[in-house]
Amino acid sequence: MGKEALRTVAKIDLETPAAEQACLHNRWHPDSPSTSLTDLRQIKNDDSADDMKNVDLTKVHYLTGPFDIETAEPGDVLLVEIQDVQPFQDQPWGFTGVFDKNNGGGFLDEIYPKAAKAIWDFEGIFCSSRHIPGVRFAGLIHPGILGCAPSPEVLAEWNRREGELISANTLDRVVALPPLPQNVHAGTASDDIKEKVGKEGARTIPGRPEHGGNCDIKNLSRGSKVFLPVHVKGAKFSVGDLHFSQGDGEISFCGAIEMAGVITIKFTVMKEGMKQLGMKSPIYIPGPVEPQFGPGRHIYFEGFSVDHNGKQHYMDATVAYRETSLRCIEYLRRYGYDDYQSYLLLSCAPVQGHLAGVVDIPNACTTMGLPMDIFDFDISPHKSAEKRDMGSCAFTSDH
Amino acid sequence: MGKEALRTVAKIDLETPAAEQACLHNRWHPDSPSTSLTDLRQIKNDDSADDMKNVDLTKVHYLTGPFDIETAEPGDVLLVEIQDVQPFQDQPWGFTGVFDKNNGGGFLDEIYPKAAKAIWDFEGIFCSSRHIPGVRFAGLIHPGILGCAPSPEVLAEWNRREGELISANTLDRVVALPPLPQNVHAGTASDDIKEKVGKEGARTIPGRPEHGGNCDIKNLSRGSKVFLPVHVKGAKFSVGDLHFSQGDGEISFCGAIEMAGVITIKFTVMKEGMKQLGMKSPIYIPGPVEPQFGPGRHIYFEGFSVDHNGKQHYMDATVAYRETSLRCIEYLRRYGYDDYQSYLLLSCAPVQGHLAGVVDIPNACTTMGLPMDIFDFDISPHKSAEKRDMGSCAFTSDH
Amino acid sequence: MGKEALRTVAKIDLETPAAEQACLHNRWHPDSPSTSLTDLRQIKNDDSADDMKNVDLTKVHYLTGPFDIETAEPGDVLLVEIQDVQPFQDQPWGFTGVFDKNNGGGFLDEIYPKAAKAIWDFEGIFCSSRHIPGVRFAGLIHPGILGCAPSPEVLAEWNRREGELISANTLDRVVALPPLPQNVHAGTASDDIKEKVGKEGARTIPGRPEHGGNCDIKNLSRGSKVFLPVHVKGAKFSVGDLHFSQGDGEISFCGAIEMAGVITIKFTVMKEGMKQLGMKSPIYIPGPVEPQFGPGRHIYFEGFSVDHNGKQHYMDATVAYRETSLRCIEYLRRYGYDDYQSYLLLSCAPVQGHLAGVVDIPNACTTMGLPMDIFDFDISPHKSAEKRDMGSCAFTSDH
Amino acid sequence: MGKEALRTVAKIDLETPAAEQACLHNRWHPDSPSTSLTDLRQIKNDDSADDMKNVDLTKVHYLTGPFDIETAEPGDVLLVEIQDVQPFQDQPWGFTGVFDKNNGGGFLDEIYPKAAKAIWDFEGIFCSSRHIPGVRFAGLIHPGILGCAPSPEVLAEWNRREGELISANTLDRVVALPPLPQNVHAGTASDDIKEKVGKEGARTIPGRPEHGGNCDIKNLSRGSKVFLPVHVKGAKFSVGDLHFSQGDGEISFCGAIEMAGVITIKFTVMKEGMKQLGMKSPIYIPGPVEPQFGPGRHIYFEGFSVDHNGKQHYMDATVAYRETSLRCIEYLRRYGYDDYQSYLLLSCAPVQGHLAGVVDIPNACTTMGLPMDIFDFDISPHKSAEKRDMGSCAFTSDH
Ligand SMILES: [Zn+2]
Ligand SMILES: [Zn+2]
Ligand SMILES: [Zn+2]
Ligand SMILES: [Zn+2]
Ligand SMILES: [Zn+2]
Ligand SMILES: [Zn+2]
Ligand SMILES: [Zn+2]
Ligand SMILES: [Zn+2]
Repeated sequence: MGKEALRTVAKIDLETPAAEQACLHNRWHPDSPSTSLTDLRQIKNDDSADDMKNVDLTKVHYLTGPFDIETAEPGDVLLVEIQDVQPFQDQPWGFTGVFDKNNGGGFLDEIYPKAAKAIWDFEGIFCSSRHIPGVRFAGLIHPGILGCAPSPEVLAEWNRREGELISANTLDRVVALPPLPQNVHAGTASDDIKEKVGKEGARTIPGRPEHGGNCDIKNLSRGSKVFLPVHVKGAKFSVGDLHFSQGDGEISFCGAIEMAGVITIKFTVMKEGMKQLGMKSPIYIPGPVEPQFGPGRHIYFEGFSVDHNGKQHYMDATVAYRETSLRCIEYLRRYGYDDYQSYLLLSCAPVQGHLAGVVDIPNACTTMGLPMDIFDFDISPHKSAEKRDMGSCAFTSDH
Repeated sequence: MGKEALRTVAKIDLETPAAEQACLHNRWHPDSPSTSLTDLRQIKNDDSADDMKNVDLTKVHYLTGPFDIETAEPGDVLLVEIQDVQPFQDQPWGFTGVFDKNNGGGFLDEIYPKAAKAIWDFEGIFCSSRHIPGVRFAGLIHPGILGCAPSPEVLAEWNRREGELISANTLDRVVALPPLPQNVHAGTASDDIKEKVGKEGARTIPGRPEHGGNCDIKNLSRGSKVFLPVHVKGAKFSVGDLHFSQGDGEISFCGAIEMAGVITIKFTVMKEGMKQLGMKSPIYIPGPVEPQFGPGRHIYFEGFSVDHNGKQHYMDATVAYRETSLRCIEYLRRYGYDDYQSYLLLSCAPVQGHLAGVVDIPNACTTMGLPMDIFDFDISPHKSAEKRDMGSCAFTSDH
Repeated sequence: MGKEALRTVAKIDLETPAAEQACLHNRWHPDSPSTSLTDLRQIKNDDSADDMKNVDLTKVHYLTGPFDIETAEPGDVLLVEIQDVQPFQDQPWGFTGVFDKNNGGGFLDEIYPKAAKAIWDFEGIFCSSRHIPGVRFAGLIHPGILGCAPSPEVLAEWNRREGELISANTLDRVVALPPLPQNVHAGTASDDIKEKVGKEGARTIPGRPEHGGNCDIKNLSRGSKVFLPVHVKGAKFSVGDLHFSQGDGEISFCGAIEMAGVITIKFTVMKEGMKQLGMKSPIYIPGPVEPQFGPGRHIYFEGFSVDHNGKQHYMDATVAYRETSLRCIEYLRRYGYDDYQSYLLLSCAPVQGHLAGVVDIPNACTTMGLPMDIFDFDISPHKSAEKRDMGSCAFTSDH
Repeated sequence: MGKEALRTVAKIDLETPAAEQACLHNRWHPDSPSTSLTDLRQIKNDDSADDMKNVDLTKVHYLTGPFDIETAEPGDVLLVEIQDVQPFQDQPWGFTGVFDKNNGGGFLDEIYPKAAKAIWDFEGIFCSSRHIPGVRFAGLIHPGILGCAPSPEVLAEWNRREGELISANTLDRVVALPPLPQNVHAGTASDDIKEKVGKEGARTIPGRPEHGGNCDIKNLSRGSKVFLPVHVKGAKFSVGDLHFSQGDGEISFCGAIEMAGVITIKFTVMKEGMKQLGMKSPIYIPGPVEPQFGPGRHIYFEGFSVDHNGKQHYMDATVAYRETSLRCIEYLRRYGYDDYQSYLLLSCAPVQGHLAGVVDIPNACTTMGLPMDIFDFDISPHKSAEKRDMGSCAFTSDH
């Protein structure tokens, strides 16, 4: 090799509706015929969050694939090496969004229910946003979604257990997304298959233990090696949801810097790898080129499983991380940032979210490390702060 | 300074029962008179876990303090710089334990209900264990507990909300620990005060948002700066629970390498710091000398909020991290480690526990990064494994 | 910005001889009119080093530029931010060469006098070579050459001092390269100017303190900020010599992985910056995304200023580093590598070359850190080694 | 082990003259009978550099050892693992000195000929100096000297080649130090042996390729593994010259932060290791706990082999590094530091000295990376600087 340009196996035309492109799909199903990227075009590079508010979540995520990997069979492990990820050269921008509480919501939607948006401009490996001034950082670029197709048995199990959660739900919110024929896209599938995929196919929003999927792991970046369980002949590997950067948790839901781009992948099949590795869920080894700030260049915020209403939860790391995020948002107010700006920022900047203590009843403790060096001014706690005019992120027109 | 040895303000005599020592206490209370360390002597450096099984949890944790910090007043922030932490030179060992499910339990007690123990020998900055062969690593030495005393109002709030959790509990397990007169130790307190502390004083097991306490953050190591809210005049700062090393989550409960040692601290008071920093919970900046393995020298395991019984939970990061831990334990079986050995190891080795995605309903996704370089053999997934005789950790005599 | 593709200011056509392209030049001169890249086409992607042996060094380096920077004046500092460097997508390969001792030579040419070559194939951020098996690493991609044009006074000083060195030379080797009309390329310059540039223009092979130039600093990679002295109106900035990777010292002379590619740069002018910074030579701040292996994943070799003939030199760090390199080459023999393979490898892999002690008369001590993780087998000294068949790098046909 | 305190094999009494202590020696000789530390007591913790000026260099360095290592024989490799290094608890201070040009000198003595001194106070892992305000950093603690005794043949070779350098010397300075009977200290040696050691014994000031010795490698810190050639039966290992911190180059000669302390070492013998490793000089693997600032938190200065008198040297990395050091000193003037303060600082702070390019005739290029985070104010070049009153380092009374 080497003397020729890299071979591109699937090209997405961003001017053509996703539903008309053969190499895209937006459901997990063993019968999906073949080869996507997040439908960027629902979101515009402008200063209004109307598009965020009215986004059609039945369509996302469009994935590229599935790709048939020769020799791969159920029980094997597909070793996926991410050799590079790049934004399209002619589209050097991405976005981070907060969905409206009534259309998708997010981790902090009880407190921040409105839709909001930030556009990020890419300058080489860096990004900055006119909607969040004072910040610039190198991307930790990665795909949010990677995985092989479920077998019929695995798919049935997903539908069973998520169906049970939906049935038992007493919360005043959507807790899971069942199969949905509306807006199914299954590449070149025949109408029969398409109908079946619509009825049975798993939504691509959640990650799932059996195959990974939308796990949104920020460190699955350049140079990472991912070991994926194979459930069907040919593996039927799919990838999508490219992120220029993301923080641990991707808290605003549409929280990464979503972008259109190219991913370069190398595949290796480990025969009978699942058994050899005792593997039930994907494992991975990060690449060597993550941005490195030094441990002492982070401010860490602590949160516990006592919610902002003063209610004590039992060992709930989700509550703890929500509180941790709020502590960080509160801190950033001292520099003039609006809470929505900070909410967007913590979703997409390379913040480190850690499980600190999960055993000291009744309080789980989590931490969030905010890298100081993404700011162009000093945010050290022992330096006095001065509020600046930080402008605003994009809101809806009826805001 | 500089020409003299460092001044030691509180010395603990490990041969004298903790309850007879003035500079120790084991409850959080504004009236506690004065100055501890985890009662190491409940646990012996031997090869039986009988002591783990029968540990008296009403006694822990003994803390050193409280120390009065001149000029500190409610609303201030106490900046605590951890200049060094060292094990006692003549006690170069520590332990990691799993409590019996019926006496304390731990993160995985439904699966691993028995008491178990590993003794760790210190060799300079490194530790190794006769109970978990093949492993050796540099400690990320830190105090598990740091905090200032609660005000009467804060203490009342703690007792209210934890009391409510206990009242509402429908789980078949202890969910929180109310005040308990038994085994109260309050330093030099008069009998009146001691009785009051017994009745009202908060147990030191959980961390709490208002002051930190037992947050068990592994990176609060040498060189860290911690910013603590002050609630009472003089701050009444306490510290204890020294750990030679700990993994994110400290999953086996008594999961760090508990040790007896010395901590060197520098205090600074930030007047009205809570308001200036918009601070409700402690924040900290790690020190510069953490062990660094390189990102590509970790194997990361993924877990989701589907439990090992196949039940789907809604966005539960605690469930996800439990599953993540199990995936790692399962992986280590390929080298011959017993599950209890791995459970102990993941509790105390510097594993990285991350919140990856907390928004993709219904699945929270967490990850655990296991550093390969703590093993003296190659644990890469793409290398074939051979099972070795890995001996055993310590169990109870009736095991 | 952001909505459009990045603007490319100078495009090099690799099919047209460099000497016919207007935006290229290969001499430093204040009168050079305008805008290159190392003439890659002298070297072919094949398995013979005949091209290395017969390379025409009067032609190199072709630089892109000079670019006029508005507002820049003598005494200012040009802040150059390297936002990205990428190989051309359709040319995913580069080369490392050893010149023949009689035509350029290199750091170790007394011991390794022959020409040799290795071709490197790029796979995303990684590279590997059919000429040096067992090795694969992420590039630390950077320009070898960056600088602003010299003023007539600075140029005269260069010619004076290098002329004096040449005049005083008693060594049996070329010690410096005087101006040379042959093969001058000065972009769109008129014949008069071209002749002047030929007679006076400084060769682009050495770096020089007043402006930087060919400093070949491996860490001047993505995200770096370089502060360059400005000597002429408009700065006349040039850049070239793009490297996919290089080791400290670039010991084989043509030692980096030379490639054809694109560099994205942002300019800022600091008025009167030289005085403000007390600056005589460039300074720089590295970017945050260097490959990070962890300190404990390097084997460091030591060398002293006693040469391989047993002669004691006085505090000579150059001799020490030559010995250090030899120690590393000798070590790699245990795995079956030929010395020329190792010579090429140490030139281009991210080895860390340090000045350790430069004061303990008579011995300077330097070290070279070889990252273990660029090898696909374990090269730890405490593991026994087995020699493999490592093939061969490319040699000349008369080899 | 583990249950007992670490065994100390050699204790130095700092109140007794070194020459009266049996476990000390200050010459390398195969006949030295047995077991030191730099004679700290020549230097006082005061504000005068008179002691620096009048230091007796015939006495240094006192080494601890030699230790006989069972089973070690010529041709073996002694693997020395540095498990910990600590300053004496009751001596939490050290010093950095510049020698007078006429009594030892240093790397920059042509420009800075006076004696000077800075005292450093230790606060846990950090140090700061009343003589260089505004600076505080974590130590990269290590022994400057490590090595096994030379065989008679190796010793003879040292004396031959260093003798030849002295004979051929035309420089107006001392270029090497021959054996010297004056102030020989050889532990418990008999008078005969002592005389022989005096006549033949190699001075301990330079490192040497055959055994390492005073290589002053700053990264030989906690957790490092050093592989040392063995030349005599029993290895006769010695160690000394403990440094709290040092910069690459240790430029002021007495440039590290010299301290009195304890080192904990583990020995392993690799039989016939020299042949197996193809080893002529020591190699080492650093430990995992070095202070880590992140690459982007360093300012790098460039220097070339053109000296400050404008003379062009041929590929001289020593000249280049001297110039690099000067560029950094010049930069620090903008904050009010006196050149001697900076000279001392660059000697002992963890600066990174790199060989950048050693092939681009006639200019060698070296770099020095100054970590920004050792300063308590912002030293970024793009921030404007304000001169402060930085006090003074210690000078001699006749200054
Ligand atoms: Zn996603
Ligand atoms: Zn996404
Ligand atoms: Zn704890
Ligand atoms: Zn603990
Ligand atoms: Zn170059
Ligand atoms: Zn080059
Ligand atoms: Zn030394
Ligand atoms: Zn020293």
